[in-house]
Order: sequence, then structure tokens, then C-alpha cells
Amino acid sequence: MKFVFVIVLAVFLQCGTVWASASADSIIGTDRPDGRFLSSRGVVQQLMKDRSPTLAFDPNMDPSGFVQWQADMKAAMRRLMRHPSTEVPAPRKVKTVIRSGYRIEKWESYPLDGAVVPYLVMIPDGADTVHPAPAVLCIPGFGQTKELLAGETVGDFNLNGKPAENPGKNAMALHYVRKNVVAVVVDNVSFGELADDGRADYLNTSRMLLEMGWSYLGLTSWQDKVVLDWMKTVPYINKERILVSGFSLGTEPLMALGLLDDSIYAFVYNDFLCTTRERILVMTKPDAQGNRPFPNSIEHLIPEFLTTFDFPDIVAALAPRPVICTEGGLDRDFRKIRKAYEWSGAPDNFTYYHYAKYADPTVRMDVEEVPQGVDRTQFFRIVNCDPPSHYFKTEWVLPWLDDLLGK
Amino acid sequence: MKFVFVIVLAVFLQCGTVWASASADSIIGTDRPDGRFLSSRGVVQQLMKDRSPTLAFDPNMDPSGFVQWQADMKAAMRRLMRHPSTEVPAPRKVKTVIRSGYRIEKWESYPLDGAVVPYLVMIPDGADTVHPAPAVLCIPGFGQTKELLAGETVGDFNLNGKPAENPGKNAMALHYVRKNVVAVVVDNVSFGELADDGRADYLNTSRMLLEMGWSYLGLTSWQDKVVLDWMKTVPYINKERILVSGFSLGTEPLMALGLLDDSIYAFVYNDFLCTTRERILVMTKPDAQGNRPFPNSIEHLIPEFLTTFDFPDIVAALAPRPVICTEGGLDRDFRKIRKAYEWSGAPDNFTYYHYAKYADPTVRMDVEEVPQGVDRTQFFRIVNCDPPSHYFKTEWVLPWLDDLLGK
Repeated sequence: MKFVFVIVLAVFLQCGTVWASASADSIIGTDRPDGRFLSSRGVVQQLMKDRSPTLAFDPNMDPSGFVQWQADMKAAMRRLMRHPSTEVPAPRKVKTVIRSGYRIEKWESYPLDGAVVPYLVMIPDGADTVHPAPAVLCIPGFGQTKELLAGETVGDFNLNGKPAENPGKNAMALHYVRKNVVAVVVDNVSFGELADDGRADYLNTSRMLLEMGWSYLGLTSWQDKVVLDWMKTVPYINKERILVSGFSLGTEPLMALGLLDDSIYAFVYNDFLCTTRERILVMTKPDAQGNRPFPNSIEHLIPEFLTTFDFPDIVAALAPRPVICTEGGLDRDFRKIRKAYEWSGAPDNFTYYHYAKYADPTVRMDVEEVPQGVDRTQFFRIVNCDPPSHYFKTEWVLPWLDDLLGK
Repeated sequence: MKFVFVIVLAVFLQCGTVWASASADSIIGTDRPDGRFLSSRGVVQQLMKDRSPTLAFDPNMDPSGFVQWQADMKAAMRRLMRHPSTEVPAPRKVKTVIRSGYRIEKWESYPLDGAVVPYLVMIPDGADTVHPAPAVLCIPGFGQTKELLAGETVGDFNLNGKPAENPGKNAMALHYVRKNVVAVVVDNVSFGELADDGRADYLNTSRMLLEMGWSYLGLTSWQDKVVLDWMKTVPYINKERILVSGFSLGTEPLMALGLLDDSIYAFVYNDFLCTTRERILVMTKPDAQGNRPFPNSIEHLIPEFLTTFDFPDIVAALAPRPVICTEGGLDRDFRKIRKAYEWSGAPDNFTYYHYAKYADPTVRMDVEEVPQGVDRTQFFRIVNCDPPSHYFKTEWVLPWLDDLLGK
């Protein structure tokens, strides 16, 4: 039985070299004539395979059902994120520093009774009550801080020092404020100023949240929602032009906020577009020690998320609001999303770029299904992801932004 | 602020030497005058601390509410375990081997469409339709197989060889069958015959189950429930005298089954009795690398379990059915459980023993609350757990069983 899978795998793949090392035990199979699995992993693999996400976007659906589908997606995200329904105290400004062409205000928000969550607000010179500016909520990736995104010195939470000398591409918020956009920057839960005595603490925090029936993404997106709601009340911000920009891990709260808040104007999605359920199901190739890869760490675990929808479905549900995806993925998914944008009457509002390495269609993989039995490196190759080139793509985002904001 | 905690910790503890190394950063505190936490861990710690389990057993409650509380506990466990509601095919016998004084049948159950789950049935000579025997469902601990519990050769899934030469204390099922009790033995999910190509696979399987909104305990207890239900249909088993016996990890499905199935006659709980929520909240002392302990691996994670109830609450809810706890814990918890048994009119039906090392009350810790800031070793000391002596306690269980079954 396992050999059949290997043959299917070999036939299926367009590029032979990558999977040359795939062996029988990379595939989770069963030798039983009744097709039942003895291994629990096999059983659970089958169970997950059988459970297609209930709200998966179907490009063959009747387009007249699209709006209702979007409403269902939004309701599902509300259910999954479990945001508190209580009022929160108003944020408070704690510091202002002047930079060349803009100022940075440090604010504190109070999203939960026991919590203080600081954030930075970068206000370009010229933005004021009379001339409210567009604004963007900037959400960092794993291991990134709000100071990094702001082009400040990493670790200088009180902005006592000077800005970073070479802020680099990943200083997302700095790039925005230089475009005369108000850039609001947050930390993700458990990192940066929110770390545990200076240490990243994604795992323990995620675990405790999960014990309580909440999740890392639930809390992170709630913290971000509090800041986003505050942004709408600021007189120098044009609340009709608020964007959300997420890098890597930060694309997850971006997607949550996108479905939770119709007032967001547009989205910058800076990561490859991943079908996460598929990633879990296909990455079954044991490593040198014989262990299959663990999907990813538990800050990405939201029970019932992947049985409800996956990342491409969520992006499709953002139509017709402008979205730019900057780091590719599978054309299969982009075709689906484009269909959603066509149905919503704004096909040009969805923009995407592949990694430079896979920009050429003859080099790019274009499969309808990623085969089981791959490791992380093989998975990334198949879905056209080039991890060493994972950075904030100013080259695509900034011209797109100019165009979007009509400058 | 942190120093206050340390003083409280020092005053609180009865035994000074164990905590001598507790330092300020072992405690999760905040220096802010408003008491808010900047660290996400602090926020989440506070959140979990504030959320006492909704169904925690309250020894000061009005005893007239006890039966309703038990009903609420059972309903909550049903909700949390998420067992399928579908009918399952009848199990099938695949092998019989003869042993001295008993025979072993190997059976296959089919708890899910894609699953086969084998189990062993050890039938003492003399048990037949005319003389149905009591029976016990034996559930192994982490890293234990049904063959180990049966006194067979570990890894010999088809029972082709001879029984183990020196089966030892942990051969729980063998001890039972020698007492003329039918012993039914299962594997836990992801281990033994249910492993993934011969490898333990607790983590990946648990993760995938959690993604689907299920859990390791949900699946394990479902597999066990299918076998338990089958036991009630077997003519040589006295279905009025079915026990469940769990070792270590196996006490978790024991507790789930206990609340799900009123027909279980009695329980053997072979582990220390742990208040798991407290364990997570107090084990905050960083290790040599500065990392706080991760509570335990994710096969123990059932979202919303610990905000609903904890292990001692569940045991209390089993009253008046006989329970023996064989490896101690905190007297605080045993006092609560005894109260529940008094209310249900059967104070003698709850039996417990401490580890030999802590049998002497002058050596044993007796605290109402475990203080924050300890590591695993310190936690085990405070709750009177002696890990090196963690084994199946034939010395307590077998006499108790004789007494229970009136022999």
C-alpha cells in the first residue's frame, strides 16, 4: 500500500530532484486490507484529511452566495478569536520624542484588567486635525519588536537613545511614516517589551491561553484590536484610510482583524500565502532521527481554526478591499482569491508578487495539491517559498501604497 | 513588589531547605504601581489565577446541592471529551493464547471509521457464562504498553512468544487476572501497537487532534469507552462489577470514563493526585538557562478542562463509588474528597495511601496552597510525590480488591 503512495508521489511531482529522498516511511499508510490505520497518527491524519474546512472558499460556488459566505467567515472568526466583550480604559500617552520628519509617541493600552500593552505612534510632520493622514497598524513577525519596525534601537523601550543607524528593510513602520502615513506599531504577545523578564515566552503563554480555551492569536488580535479601535478616534488619522500591515507571524492577527473589522481599508500581507492545514498533512517525512516534523509551535494553534477555514480562504473573504501579498505561494491559491475579487467587482484590488527566485513561471511550481511525504525544505520549495529572502518587501509595498493612496 | 512575594513564600513554607534557591525572578510579578503586568506571561498568569474552575468542589457548599453538582460535572466532561455519537462496529477476536491459569484473547475494536484499536482480554480459568467474573479495564501510563501490563513480552503484539519472565509490579493486568478478575488491557493513543512506525507519537497526534478541536484525552477516552461498552456485553463478565484501573497518564481516561459512565463499579487511581492548574501556576522557577518550566506535554492539554474542574474535583464527583488512590498527594485534596464521600453516605468508599516516603504525617507537607516560584522537583516535594517510587502499588490495590469483591 505504501509503495502505491510513493509512485503517486513520484508521478505527481514536476521536479524529480527535490523528492529523491522520499522513502516509503515518509508516507503515512496502512498495510491492512480494510484500509484502517493501526497507528494513531494514521487515524488522526485520516480524520484531518476527511475534515475539509467547513467554510473553504469554493471557486465553483454560485457567486450569488458570496456575500453570505463572507458573513459566515466573519462570524466564524468572531467565534474563534473569543475577544472579550467588555469596555477597555482609554489608552494613555507616556512619552513623545522628535525625529526628523516625524515624531514618535509612546502610548499604553489596557486591553485586559491585569495588562498594560505599550505601542508606538509615528506621526509624520503635517498630519493634524485639519489634514488627517492615512494610517497603518504595523504588526511584527516572530522575534521582531515594535522598535525594530519603527527604526529605533532594539531594546530601547523608552526611546531614550537615538534611532537605529541602519534600520533596513524590515523597519516597516519607518518606511510608512516616511510616506506621510501615520504608523502605529505594536509588539506581539510574549515578545519585545511584552517578554517575560526579557525572554521570549511564546510557548508557555500560548499553553496557558489554550488551557483557558483562548489562544495566542486570540489574545494578540485582541490587543491589536484595542489599538486599532483607538486609531479610529485620533483626529489626525483619516479613519477612512486605515491599513493593517503584517509581517510573517503578524499576518495572522492581520487576517483576524480583517474579518472582524469591516472598516479597515486595505492590507499588506508580507509572507508567503500558506495553506496551513495542507502543510500539516504533507510534512510527514521523518528527519535523520526518524521523527516526523512537528507542524509549527503552539502559538499558531487555534482549536477548530483549520477545520473552519485556512489562510487563502480568509484573504479571499477580504474582497473587495485592497490586499497585497508580497511573498508568493501557490498560484492555485491566488487564482481562487482572484475569483473572489472578480465576484466582488474589484479584480484589480488583489495584488500579489512571488519571491524573486520564483517569479519566472517556468521555475515556479504550480500544483493543485502538495503531495504527502515531504520535509520542511521540500514543502517550501513546492509552495515557492524562499525563506532566506523573507523580509519586508518595500519594493512592492511602497509603490502599491502610493498608488492606493493616490499620491 | 517581587520581594513581597518572596517573603510571603518564605513565611508560607514549612520546610525551609527546599526553597532556599527561590529568587525574585522565580515569581512572576510586576513593579507597576497600578499592578498591571507588562509581560504577557504575567497577564496570562493573572488571567488563569482569576479563573477558578467553574465547577470546583466546594466543601462548604450546601450538601443538598451535591447531586446536582455531580450532574453538572458529568455534563461538563461529556462536553469536553467530544466523543462521537455514531455507532461503532462490533469488536472482533483475532487470536487466543493459553497461559497458566488464564487465557489471553486479542481483540480488535473499530472506534472510528479509519481506525483499528487492538486490546487484550485476560480471562481467568473458571470465568464463564454460568460464573461471570468481575472485570477491570487496565489503562497504561506514558511509555507503557498493554503487553507490559499483561505480563507479556513488550513488542510482541501478536503474542507469538512466551510471557515475560519477570513481569514485575507494573504488570497490572496480570495481577488482576491472578485474582480471578477478567483483565482487559488497552494501549494509549500513539504508543505501543498504536505508535507511528514503532515510534511514540504523542505530540504530533495531540497537536492534530487539538487543531480539530478534539484532544489526546478525548480520543483516548473514546477508544477506552468503546472497549468498556463491549465489556458490558461479554457473558463471562459480571457487568455489575466492572472496575477501571489507571496508571499515571492512564488516570486521565479513568477520570473521564468515571464521569461519563455511571455503571463503572470502582476505580484504582495509581498516581499522586495532582491539582494540575495549581501545578501550572506555581512552577515558575527558571531553570539554569533561565527558562521557566513548560507545564507538561500537550497530550495533557484539553482546552477549558482546567477552567471547569481539576483532578481532585473529578475524584470527589465519583462518590459514592469506591476509589483507591495509591500514591498520595496533598491532604488538603483528600479532605475535600472525603467530605464528598461523607455527603454521599459512603465515607469508607474512598481509600488513599501516601507514598511510603511521606506516610509519616510529620514528614509529609500539608499546605492549603502551593506557593508560586518552584521548579518541578520542589513541586513534587511539596505535594508529597516521590517520582522514583512511581509504580503500580500491588501492596495497596490487591488487598483492597479482595475486600471490595468480598473474597
